[in-house]
This record gives sequence, structure tokens and C-alpha cells, in this order.
Amino acid sequence: MSSRLIECLGITEEMAGLFSDASVLGAMLCFETALAAAQARLGMIPHSAAEALARLRADEFDAAALARDARHSATLAIPFVQALTARVETLDAYSSGFVHWGATSQDLLDTALVLLLAEARAAMAVHHDRLENELRDLSGKHAGAIMLARTLLQPAPPTTFGYKAAGWFGLVRRSWRRIDLSFDDALVVQFGGAAGTLAAYGDRGPALVIELAKELKLGVAEAPSHTHRDRLASLVANCGIHTGGLGKVALDVALLMQQEVAEVSERGGGSSAMPNKRNPSSAALILAAATRMPGMVASYLSGMLQEHERAAGGWQAEWPTVAAAIQSTAGAMSAAVDMIGGLTVNAERMRANLEATHGSVFAEKAVMLLGPKMGRRAAQTLVSEACRNQPLRDALARNPQAASALTPEQIAAIDRPEEYLGAAEVFRRRLLDKE
Amino acid sequence: MSSRLIECLGITEEMAGLFSDASVLGAMLCFETALAAAQARLGMIPHSAAEALARLRADEFDAAALARDARHSATLAIPFVQALTARVETLDAYSSGFVHWGATSQDLLDTALVLLLAEARAAMAVHHDRLENELRDLSGKHAGAIMLARTLLQPAPPTTFGYKAAGWFGLVRRSWRRIDLSFDDALVVQFGGAAGTLAAYGDRGPALVIELAKELKLGVAEAPSHTHRDRLASLVANCGIHTGGLGKVALDVALLMQQEVAEVSERGGGSSAMPNKRNPSSAALILAAATRMPGMVASYLSGMLQEHERAAGGWQAEWPTVAAAIQSTAGAMSAAVDMIGGLTVNAERMRANLEATHGSVFAEKAVMLLGPKMGRRAAQTLVSEACRNQPLRDALARNPQAASALTPEQIAAIDRPEEYLGAAEVFRRRLLDKE
Amino acid sequence: MSSRLIECLGITEEMAGLFSDASVLGAMLCFETALAAAQARLGMIPHSAAEALARLRADEFDAAALARDARHSATLAIPFVQALTARVETLDAYSSGFVHWGATSQDLLDTALVLLLAEARAAMAVHHDRLENELRDLSGKHAGAIMLARTLLQPAPPTTFGYKAAGWFGLVRRSWRRIDLSFDDALVVQFGGAAGTLAAYGDRGPALVIELAKELKLGVAEAPSHTHRDRLASLVANCGIHTGGLGKVALDVALLMQQEVAEVSERGGGSSAMPNKRNPSSAALILAAATRMPGMVASYLSGMLQEHERAAGGWQAEWPTVAAAIQSTAGAMSAAVDMIGGLTVNAERMRANLEATHGSVFAEKAVMLLGPKMGRRAAQTLVSEACRNQPLRDALARNPQAASALTPEQIAAIDRPEEYLGAAEVFRRRLLDKE
Amino acid sequence: MSSRLIECLGITEEMAGLFSDASVLGAMLCFETALAAAQARLGMIPHSAAEALARLRADEFDAAALARDARHSATLAIPFVQALTARVETLDAYSSGFVHWGATSQDLLDTALVLLLAEARAAMAVHHDRLENELRDLSGKHAGAIMLARTLLQPAPPTTFGYKAAGWFGLVRRSWRRIDLSFDDALVVQFGGAAGTLAAYGDRGPALVIELAKELKLGVAEAPSHTHRDRLASLVANCGIHTGGLGKVALDVALLMQQEVAEVSERGGGSSAMPNKRNPSSAALILAAATRMPGMVASYLSGMLQEHERAAGGWQAEWPTVAAAIQSTAGAMSAAVDMIGGLTVNAERMRANLEATHGSVFAEKAVMLLGPKMGRRAAQTLVSEACRNQPLRDALARNPQAASALTPEQIAAIDRPEEYLGAAEVFRRRLLDKE
Repeated sequence: MSSRLIECLGITEEMAGLFSDASVLGAMLCFETALAAAQARLGMIPHSAAEALARLRADEFDAAALARDARHSATLAIPFVQALTARVETLDAYSSGFVHWGATSQDLLDTALVLLLAEARAAMAVHHDRLENELRDLSGKHAGAIMLARTLLQPAPPTTFGYKAAGWFGLVRRSWRRIDLSFDDALVVQFGGAAGTLAAYGDRGPALVIELAKELKLGVAEAPSHTHRDRLASLVANCGIHTGGLGKVALDVALLMQQEVAEVSERGGGSSAMPNKRNPSSAALILAAATRMPGMVASYLSGMLQEHERAAGGWQAEWPTVAAAIQSTAGAMSAAVDMIGGLTVNAERMRANLEATHGSVFAEKAVMLLGPKMGRRAAQTLVSEACRNQPLRDALARNPQAASALTPEQIAAIDRPEEYLGAAEVFRRRLLDKE
Repeated sequence: MSSRLIECLGITEEMAGLFSDASVLGAMLCFETALAAAQARLGMIPHSAAEALARLRADEFDAAALARDARHSATLAIPFVQALTARVETLDAYSSGFVHWGATSQDLLDTALVLLLAEARAAMAVHHDRLENELRDLSGKHAGAIMLARTLLQPAPPTTFGYKAAGWFGLVRRSWRRIDLSFDDALVVQFGGAAGTLAAYGDRGPALVIELAKELKLGVAEAPSHTHRDRLASLVANCGIHTGGLGKVALDVALLMQQEVAEVSERGGGSSAMPNKRNPSSAALILAAATRMPGMVASYLSGMLQEHERAAGGWQAEWPTVAAAIQSTAGAMSAAVDMIGGLTVNAERMRANLEATHGSVFAEKAVMLLGPKMGRRAAQTLVSEACRNQPLRDALARNPQAASALTPEQIAAIDRPEEYLGAAEVFRRRLLDKE
Repeated sequence: MSSRLIECLGITEEMAGLFSDASVLGAMLCFETALAAAQARLGMIPHSAAEALARLRADEFDAAALARDARHSATLAIPFVQALTARVETLDAYSSGFVHWGATSQDLLDTALVLLLAEARAAMAVHHDRLENELRDLSGKHAGAIMLARTLLQPAPPTTFGYKAAGWFGLVRRSWRRIDLSFDDALVVQFGGAAGTLAAYGDRGPALVIELAKELKLGVAEAPSHTHRDRLASLVANCGIHTGGLGKVALDVALLMQQEVAEVSERGGGSSAMPNKRNPSSAALILAAATRMPGMVASYLSGMLQEHERAAGGWQAEWPTVAAAIQSTAGAMSAAVDMIGGLTVNAERMRANLEATHGSVFAEKAVMLLGPKMGRRAAQTLVSEACRNQPLRDALARNPQAASALTPEQIAAIDRPEEYLGAAEVFRRRLLDKE
Repeated sequence: MSSRLIECLGITEEMAGLFSDASVLGAMLCFETALAAAQARLGMIPHSAAEALARLRADEFDAAALARDARHSATLAIPFVQALTARVETLDAYSSGFVHWGATSQDLLDTALVLLLAEARAAMAVHHDRLENELRDLSGKHAGAIMLARTLLQPAPPTTFGYKAAGWFGLVRRSWRRIDLSFDDALVVQFGGAAGTLAAYGDRGPALVIELAKELKLGVAEAPSHTHRDRLASLVANCGIHTGGLGKVALDVALLMQQEVAEVSERGGGSSAMPNKRNPSSAALILAAATRMPGMVASYLSGMLQEHERAAGGWQAEWPTVAAAIQSTAGAMSAAVDMIGGLTVNAERMRANLEATHGSVFAEKAVMLLGPKMGRRAAQTLVSEACRNQPLRDALARNPQAASALTPEQIAAIDRPEEYLGAAEVFRRRLLDKE
């Protein structure tokens, strides 16, 4: 199942399939079948009705007709239940009276969405595991690759690529954990009936919820939540945060891949005009997702203002937003696996870029050594000037004040990046949970 | 062409078709064919190449394969141009060397999008014309239907439904005009080549742009604008504003349609659980669009940060956002035509709801009459009390101070809504451009 | 400390004070003082420096001058540290060399923000506790108040106000818990030095972090996170979700407070034109916050794309967004306490509105009773017709088919709301954790 | 008037002043004074009332008390009008009865906002004029500075810095024009009274509007627009677009200023840890504004769903959003003036970076020359290989196929950027309106 061309950059085939008509119909049918099975087991409807439903397949439905009719009633549930009833009628007229028995549109549609989300979670978890592994390996392999830190896009004192990658790892892992917890919360059956009271089942509603949830392998919340959308909101928002984090990683990669920097390179893709060009293609896909997601999160949150027991507007806005948010996030995760998995690291270039600063990134170090001896202000003046007459090391050696305040060893070592990495390795290991 | 079920509430068949794979491929092919035709005319490429391209049809391409490959290079243009070249090769090997001659990916994709937008504009204009007509009629028909104004959802002095509908008319018309102007601006050919200089054509680039624009019936801007996205941004933002305005209208309708208010009713749709219920279905569709659009606008604006001559991320984010914004807006416009076209107005109920306030909405009027006579503060106290002992008219008549300050005629007329409509009709006519 | 007039509706005095210049300066000074204290304790700087810093007060600084200078360097830290150094210099010239020793701007500013957030948390927790209590009481007090459920703003089968309020309670409680967990995560010291390695302290950086965190009563993360903004993002997003939930409650209240519905009433505020009007003022404040928050969340998420070790843009965007998000959320919480605490419930009107539906909201019940006897389709037709010839009960009694399919007791009870509440009370108690 | 520290990076002193309490109170007072003057002129109220109002000054009001009370009634207008009435009472008790005569809260507050916006427009226009001039000069001065175009952050064929700056110019000018048109539309008086009918003035409402508008030097719309927010929405959205465009410029600058690129440099600001570092400070401020604005636009648009004749929520959300949007835009414009005005351009480094590509950016040119001779596919293969054995020129010269297909002159010129600029200068001049 491919995504449509208009959105093909953001959506993988897997995710296009997951929210395809076949898949949506499958989830809806699954809800109705499970409901009937649970109701039959509890003696609420005849077993024949459950059996009739169980014989239907998603591809028996005319998605185009359903889509068209859905707009008339502002819900896909009505034409679907009608079509379902008609299908059952052809199998067993009596049973058709027990389709969707006592349920409401939103029970069907919310739970169908949750069933799709459960599948999405599994697919996303696979991407995440691969990404974590790739990042962990990357960090380990380049633990000793010293490079410039960069702040406000300007050179800063050195760090290591291993630590940088570990920072990505930590970010990605924390963000996924939040999504995972949100899935735990969100993957509950929605079942409340017309007024959220399950009144159609007398006092047996709660028992039916439990049976239904068992059928669907979903959780049970303390009550239906037709207009209480916080659980899905949390999932969507955490997708936004995760995509934002992946966007940060992609931005770093794209910047490091600039020809003028050339410290890393992703496998990349070509250009239609320039045959030999290699582009940060996966990074671009991730950045595109990260560009779109904040607006999607806002759309979801705006839709939370759902009035009374079922909303006119806020709820009808949800499906495409949730689908797009999940698809974008999964698409970004998949592209991140490609990007990180295919990353080439050029440690020599990292070293060269660092050396091209002629020691000026060690100005802070020099000031901290000189400050206690000669006063910070004087030290700053001295070092600023030395940075202009770079390399810093030589300029310090030539400066009588500096030469008297520092030992020759200190001056000689002033621009050795190995000696100015601080806790980079400690932090790297902590981020990877290695200590 | 139906929309997918996951987004069927927001997208009409027409708009699903407009951004379908067939339509997207058609627009892309249209660009390449027009480019070749223009180049052949200018003697840049052999006529045979233009002719070969002109023989291709959009349905010769494998959309699924293109979608898959697009993610690898972060652009749909590369696999498409490859497929195009391969198709031409089967017709005329030599000509295949002149496909996409000197153009860049973004030239193709931006212009293809613009071609789709030109079609969307026409479709939206049809909806708009109908909507304007419906609103104008509605306002005219109910110019004399007196009803409560409502502020903060509480009763306020009277207005007319005709004026209210004229306010909707003015809002809708101004908003569409902004969209229309944005289309004027945005419907320009994008053509700059790899660096935005059209260097591949020597000094003949500008002449080629003009030919190409003629072929495509599009405008020409002063220069290519690969990373200057303000024209499309204006279109998307104005779609957001229009949908927001339609949302206001839908919200009014949904509120007036509450059973407790019952002043208007749209044709509506049913409920899966309650056979006799009539829902504000079109209003819900519009409100859903209005819920989603602000986030889409934000997504587009966030993507405007496009670096240098072609962006990595911001641009790749655009297609699905623009498509969704146009589709949502057109969907809301279409639903608004349904909603307004099918609106039933209950003038009796309007009158009854007004009378149920027992004159308290005329408190302002009473204060303004009494104030100059007895001081405003005293007047406010008197009127507040009178409102509690409603109806206001009788309470005033019973009150000695009021009875002495006002004439019996003034008191008798205090709660006649006809006499407290101010400039409602003047404003109504102005909004409809009737004076 | 009052909020500025331009934003006074959204910000309480408490929250205006919390992000006032005095408070911000206090937090910044607190960071520097604590850092010096920790460093002195570890022997990194002279005790005199820590002591000098400890003698300074926030009101010694010229906020206006700092604000002006901050724009020049794109950070408030530079002018502040300069001013701080100058202040210390007047006390002890030597010590002034050890101000902000080895720290970087973002260490100071991020940690200062976290200190403000810790205060905000405490203030918000007070509001939340009151709100939970008010909602619990409200639900308990009106457990038996039967009212219409409403779906798509139309009448639906009955529910109870107690259950409705319990739904609000559950929503509010879950949302606060998410915020609370985000605070746990976010309230960590930020301390990484210029490159995030704490290189200025050799191998003693991690020990210093621990000391510093102790001084500030903050947590310690596994590593600095200058450009990894997920923790704050989670806090902001969860504020957005909470405000969205409160907005749902406010919307319900405002709708129930319409004069035509009149089932609840908040204390409310007046109108400048209509002396006797009572507006849903607290609801309006909450809805205003809920209108603004999704955009704020989007702004924060967009800023997560922070390049390398310190960002140029994304980070500088954060302070006003975080402050506005926290202030809006706290403002909504405070208004919710007012709204719920002052809510008047009109159970009689609830009953009257229900009865005004003439039984049509029991159509589903009738269909479910009749369906198994006569087939669902026929039952739906019969009931739809009966609803048109309301009241439903009488229409059923008159209908021979219905009269033969149902017992007289069933018909007599068809519109007794007490008998069609399903699990409302069970769910209500579960939501309040009463079982 | 300085901005608060929490938002000092985004708000200039000028803009802080414009939305300060004094300024807001001034605008509110201005409305009431003008209204009274207009009413007195029309004989609606005594001249003494207008005169009494004209004697008041904004600093007579207690902003803190007003802010506090505003939250109670969900509008600043009520406490303000009360305070105003009380002030007038001390001057002339009778006149106090005619304060705010027949007006409604939103008339006062909307018009006061419009008065502030009129001032903002003037201030922004000054920034814009300077920015246009700076950009025009910059483009002219560096019309011949040849540099790499860059696509997806990778080198592309050459362009000129003059053309690049002209692209910025065009973007900035178009965007400002949209804002300017929106101001034209938005700067209208809001005046409709309690129900939008001006009923309090009988049939003289429209005449009063005209007088009032004259007093305030504002336009008159066809009718009041209390809940029709499209005009302000257009202004806010266009601010979002402009800031997005400025963000694009700032991003380009920040990227070109990377030490590894070093093609331009802004005056910049320092670092607290590294004394010699120069940061893209103005660019960072602009990027911060561009990060925040899309969310603000979304917030405004979400608030457009304003019900009936005055909203509960959407409208109350507007002031802080509009203020923040205007302040952010003006702040970005001001920072852009600083950034562009202080930009240093390093044409030598531009040339050097171009040469460092060893001709590979001319691959397209080579393919277009070779293609017609040897077939495009073969040409692409040949050129790709040549790019790997760079420099391209030498590799082509060594290649027998290339050497036979091209003239020695063609090969010698293959990497002369001057000869591959296409229409750069033509486009540059068009963008500056020079032809």
C-alpha cells in the first residue's frame, strides 16, 4: 500500500497501509464483531448475530460510497452500520437487528482508531529499537572522535562525537518512553452508548465493557471518555515532542554534512539537476515532519473543547489529525533509522575544523587559568588579543604576562582538545546507561 | 474519486480527486510537456522531444513506485523525471536526453502544485458564489425576523436574523476576496533552475519563463522564488481566515439549533443510536475544519524558514500541508453551502425566546431613558430591581420614580423590539452592498 | 504585582509576580550565588567570592538597562553577569573574578527558569487541590440530579449532573498528574559550561553539578541538555492538554448557563451596557486560555529544532512562551476554581428540559425493547413516528403493534429517566475513585 | 519603557512602551473622550460631559486595581468605565451619567486596540523603510560578488550575493505590503453598542460612527464587526508571514556566518564563556520571533470562532495574542535592520568556497554541453566520474570523449562562474524594480 503522491515524502508504505481504507474498515468491523461476540457470550444478543458478523470481511464494503455518505451525517459510523446491517441481513435477517446493539457512533469510531493505534505502536517500536541500537553503536564507535562543539553556529570548546550521539540517544529514548506511556493510557476501549451511561444494557454495561476489551485486547478505563480527549492528546503531543527531538538530530546532521563542514555524511539522495550531488535526504524528511508536527499538535489540542457528551466539530476533526501525527512521527522515525544507520563520520575533518580555529576555542580555558593570577578582566583582554594574533598558543607564549603567569607546559597544552573534554565521556556513558 | 475514509469528513470527492495521484501526475506531466514545447519553440531542444513528451499520459506512470522512490531522494521529482525519461526513451531515444532540460526538481514540483491550485480556485469559486447567493437570499428573506442578540451566550437587546445573516455574508465575502487575491499572486510559474539563475539557458532564461507561463496559462513573477514562500503562505493563511469565518457561522447555527433555542435548523443528519435525532451535521463538518486549520497555517508558516536557494525540510513539508489546507477550506465551503442552503428559520421561536426574557434585555434602553432624568447610578439601580420583578414594563409602570420620569407611552413601548433595532437594517443593507 | 493591562484577563497577580523582573532577577541571582557557594565548598573558588555574591539583592539591578542590553547580545545572561561582576567588584575586587566561574549563559538562564517553574508548580498545586475538592463535592452533591445528556448539541438520553461533574474531575485529575510528572522531570539543574562538557572544571564537573543541585534543591539529570528540550516540551504540552480539558469544562458550563438552558450558573460578572446581565466570566477566561494554548504549545515545539550545542533562535524563543504557557494554565486553573466553586445547579430546570423532549430521547430504549420483537427496522420506523406524535409514551400506548409487543409497565416506564441511567452512578464513583 | 526581562529578547523598548499600561489606558481614554466629543457635537449628551472627560489623564487610573477587577468581569472595560465615571463624578456629577453613553465594552476595547495598532503601524513603517534601503544598498554593492548557491545545504551552481540580497528585498517588500494593506482594513472604529445595532441612539447611530471615526482619525466599516474578526486576523497572519520571511533571511545570514563558511558576518554579540566569540545575535532574535509567530497566528485563528454577537472566550483571548504578534514582528524588523545594516560581506571567501568545490558545481553545465553530443545518460556518467577526479576542468580535458565533444575553450571555461550566472543580474534588477 503506497502513500498518495501528494504526501509521499512524509508517509511510509507501512503507515499508508495502516490508515488505508482496508485497514480502517478492518478495525471498524473488528469492533462490531467483538461487540457482538461479547454480547452473545453475555446472552444479550443471539449467538447467530455474532456468528453472522464474524463471517464478514472488510473488503465487502464500498469505501467510496461510505466516504460519500459519511459527510451527510458527519460520521462514518452511520453509513457503515447501515452497510453492515445490510450485509448481515443477506446472511441472516433476524440477526441484522442486533448489529451495533446499544452502541453509539463514537464507540465504534474511537475504538477502531485505538485498534489502529495499537498496530502503529508495534510498528513504531520496531523503528525505535533499531534507532536506539544504531545510536548506541554510533556513540560507542566514535567515543574518541574529538570535534568542535558549536554554539549559535559558532565554534565552541571541543566535545566528542560520541557524546553528541549519546545526547541524541538520550533525547530519543526519553521521547519514545513518553510515547510508550501515552499508548499505555490511550489503548483503552471506548464504550459508553448514546449518553455515556451504557443505559441500553441496564446494569450490565460495565460487565460488557470488560468482555469487549478482552475480545479486542485493549484496556478498560474507569469510564467512557467521549469528550474527555486527554489520553489521545497526550499521545499526539508526545509524538510532537519526539518528532521535534528527531528534528534536532536531523538538523545537526544536515549542518555537519555541509560541504564546508563535512564532518558526517548520510547515504543521501541525488539531485535532478546535479548528477554528483549528495543531499541530506533523510534529514530533510525528518525536518519536514518536525516542521509540520507542531501545527498538528495544536490542531489536536484545539479540538479538545468538546461540548457535553459528544462534540460537534472538535471530535470530527480528530481522525485526520491523529493519523497524520502518527504517520509523520513514524515516518520521521523510519527516516532517522536510515539517516543514523548510514552515517559516515569523518574524524579527520572534525580534527581539522577544530584546528582551523587556531586555538581560539580555548580562550575560556586560558582565561580561567590566567584569571586567578592577573584578574579576570585583564585576562579576558589578554586572551581576546591573543585570539586575534592566533594561534592562541603562540600568542600566549609570546606574551610576557601570560608567559609569567602560566607554566610552559600549561601554554603548550592550552589547545590540546584531549585535555579539555571535561566530563564528556562521563556524560556519554551516563546517557547510554553505562554507569 | 473518493477521499480516504480516515479523512472523509473533511474532504469532498471533488477535492480528493484534485489531489489524487492521477491529478498530481497530470500536473507534473503538464509542466514537463509545456517546458519542452516552450523550449522547442525557442529552438533550445529538438521538436521531436516536445512531441514525444506530448504523447505521454499520466496513467502510464506507476504512482506506487514513484511514492516509494521519492522518499529515497527526498523528492518526487527525481523518480518521476527518471520514469519520464524512460518512457520517452521507448518512443525516441534521442529525445529522452532533453526531458526536464535545464530545470530543477522544485521548478517541476512547485509549478505542478500551482497548476493544481488553479483548478482548486475554480472549484472553490463555484462554492463561494453559491454561498454568497444563499446568504444574500437568507438575509433578505428574514430581514424582519426579530431575535435576541446574544453576548457571552446570554440574551442581549434584539437584532434581526436578516442582519445576522448579512454579517455572515460580509465576513464570508471579505474572506473570499482575500483568498482570491492570494490566488492571483500565487498562480505564477516557478522556474529558476538549479541555482535560481536559469544559468543553463545562458541569457535566454527570462524569455523561456515567458513562453512556459504562456503554455501553462500562469503568471510570471519578477524572479524565481524557490525559498521565498510568502505567496503560498498568504494563500494558506487566507484559507485559515476564511475557514475561521465559516466556523463562526457554523457555531452560530449549531447554537441556534439547540433544542432549547430552536431558532434555526439545518437539514442535518441522523444518529446511529437515536433514530429521530437531527444533528447539525454540516455545521459539525465546518467546525471540524475550523478546528484543524489554525494548526495547518502554523505548519506552513513554520516551514517558511527555508535556507539559501533550496531548503532541506521546510519545503519538503509543504505539499501535504497545502493540500490539506485547500481541501479543508473547500470542504468547509461546500458544507457551508449545504448548511445555509438548507437552513430553516423559525421566526416564531425567535420571538418567543425574546419574550421569555420578560423585557430584561431592554434594561439598557430603560437606563438611557431614565438616566438623564434621575442620574445614571439611580437609574441602574431602579432598572436592575425592575428586571428582577419582571416583566420590566410592568415593574417600571409600578415604580413611582419611573412612572414620573417616563411617559406612559415610553413605558408601554419599553419592550417593543421593533423600536429598539437601531441601525440593524441600515447595517444589513450596507453589508449586502445595497446602498 | 499586577499583570499588565494588555494581558490582564489571562494572568493572575500571583503569576504576574512570579515572572516579574524582580522574580526573574531573584532566580538568576540565586543561581549565581548557589554556584559560587558550591564552588567555594569544593575549593574551586575563594570563599570570599561566594560570600560577596551572597550579599547581593535582586533589587540592586537595573532591569530596564539589562533588558535593553540583552537584545544586543541575544542573551540576558551577558549584561546580567557583567552587572553582577560590577556589583561584586564594589564589594571585593578579587572576588569579582570568580563570578559565573566556568558557567555558560544557558546554564544560568535555564536554571533560573527552572527555579521559577518550581515556584509555579507549588502555586498551581494549590489551585489544583482546591479544584479537585470542589469537583468532588459538586459531583457528590448532585449525584442524583438527572439531566439531558447532549450530543452534537442535541438532546440525548439522560445522565446525571453528578456523573458529568465526575467526568470533569477525572479529566482534570489525569491532566494535572501529567503536569506533575513533567515537573518532576523538568526541575533539574542545567549545568554544562560552554560546550556541555564542564571542561572548565577538569574532571570535577559532575561533583559540582551535585553540589549545585543540592544548593538549589533541584534534581540532577544524566547530562546537561542545552539543546535537548524534551523535558520542558513535555511540561508545556501537558499544560496545553490541561488547559484544553479545563476549556471543555468551561464550555459545558457556558452552554448550560445559556438563558434558554439555565441548568447551571456561575457567579459571573456584569456587562457595561446591561446592568442586570450575568455572564459566564470565569468560563470565558478559561476558554480564552484554551484558545491561546495550542498555539503556544506549537511555538514551543517548533523551537525544539536547536542546532548543535546551543541554538540560535529556538532557544531564545523559549522564555516568553514558557512563561505565557504557565501563566495561562495557572490562570485557567484559578478561574476554574472560581467557576466550579461558585456554581449553582438548577436540578428542576434540568428535569424540565428533559421533560420538554416529550420522551423522544428514549427512542433508543424503545427501539431496543421493540427490535427483538418486531425487527429493528420496523421498530425504528414505529419509534420515529411515535416521536413525531409525542409524547413518546402516549404514542406507543396508542400504537397497536407497540402495545402488543410491550407490557403496559414497559410503556409506562419508557420515559422514566431514573430507569435509563445505566452505569452512570457506577462510572461516577469510579471516576472519583470511590470504588 | 523597557520590556519585562522574561520577554526582553523579543520586544523592543518602543514596542514595550506601545503596549504598556500607560499606553493602553491612554487609548481607552482616547476612545471615551472622542465618543463624548462626538456625542456632544451631535447633541446627544451635554457638552459638559465631553469637557469633563477631556480633562482626564491616563495616569489618574490605578492600572493594578483595574487589572485585578478585570478578571472578575472578564473584561477590562467594566472596571475602567467605573473608574472613569468615578473620576468624572469628582469633576461634575451630572456629566458622569453620560460616560460611555450607549457604548458597549467591546466598542471601547476593540477601538482602543486599533488606536494602538495605528501607532504600531507608524513605528513598523520606519523600520521597514530602513530595511528596504539597507537591502537595496546591500544588493547593489555586492551585485558582482559571486558565490555558491546552496540547495539542501549543499553547493549548487553559482549565484551572486547581490541577487541573493535582492531576493530578500523582494520577500521583505511583498510581505510588508500585505501588512500595510491589512492595516488599511483593520484600522476602523468598532462601534455597535450592546447588540451591534447602535439601538441606544435610535436612528442616529450611523451618523455617530462617522463623527467618532473623525475624532479618532480611523476608518469606518460597513457595519460593526464584534464577532467578525477577519480584519485583525489578516493583520496577524500577515505579521506571521513577514516574520517567517525575515526568519528566512536571518537563517541565511546565520548559516553564511558559520566559521566554516564565513561569507558574511553581522556585528553580533559576545558570549559569557568565550570572550572573543562573535555570535549572530540579531539573526538569533529574528529566528526566535519566527519560531514563535506561527503559534501566535494559530492562536488568533482559533479564536475566530466567536459565537453570536459577542464571544465568551475567543475574543477575550485576543489582546495578548495581537500584542505579542505585533511586538514580535516589530522586534524582528528592528533586529533585521541591525543585522542587515551591520552586515560585512567577504567576497574573497565566497570565491574561495566556490573554488573549493573544484568545479563540481558545474556538473550540470557540463552535462548540458555534452548531452546533445553523446546522449544525456552517457554524459551524466562521464561528468559524475569527472567530478570524482576533480577538478572537473582537468578531468574533462583528460577525458577523450569529453575532449572530442567540447572545444578547448568550452573546457577551459567550464568552471568560470562569471559565465554561468544566467539571469542572476536580470532577476536582481527586477526584484529591486530597476527595470
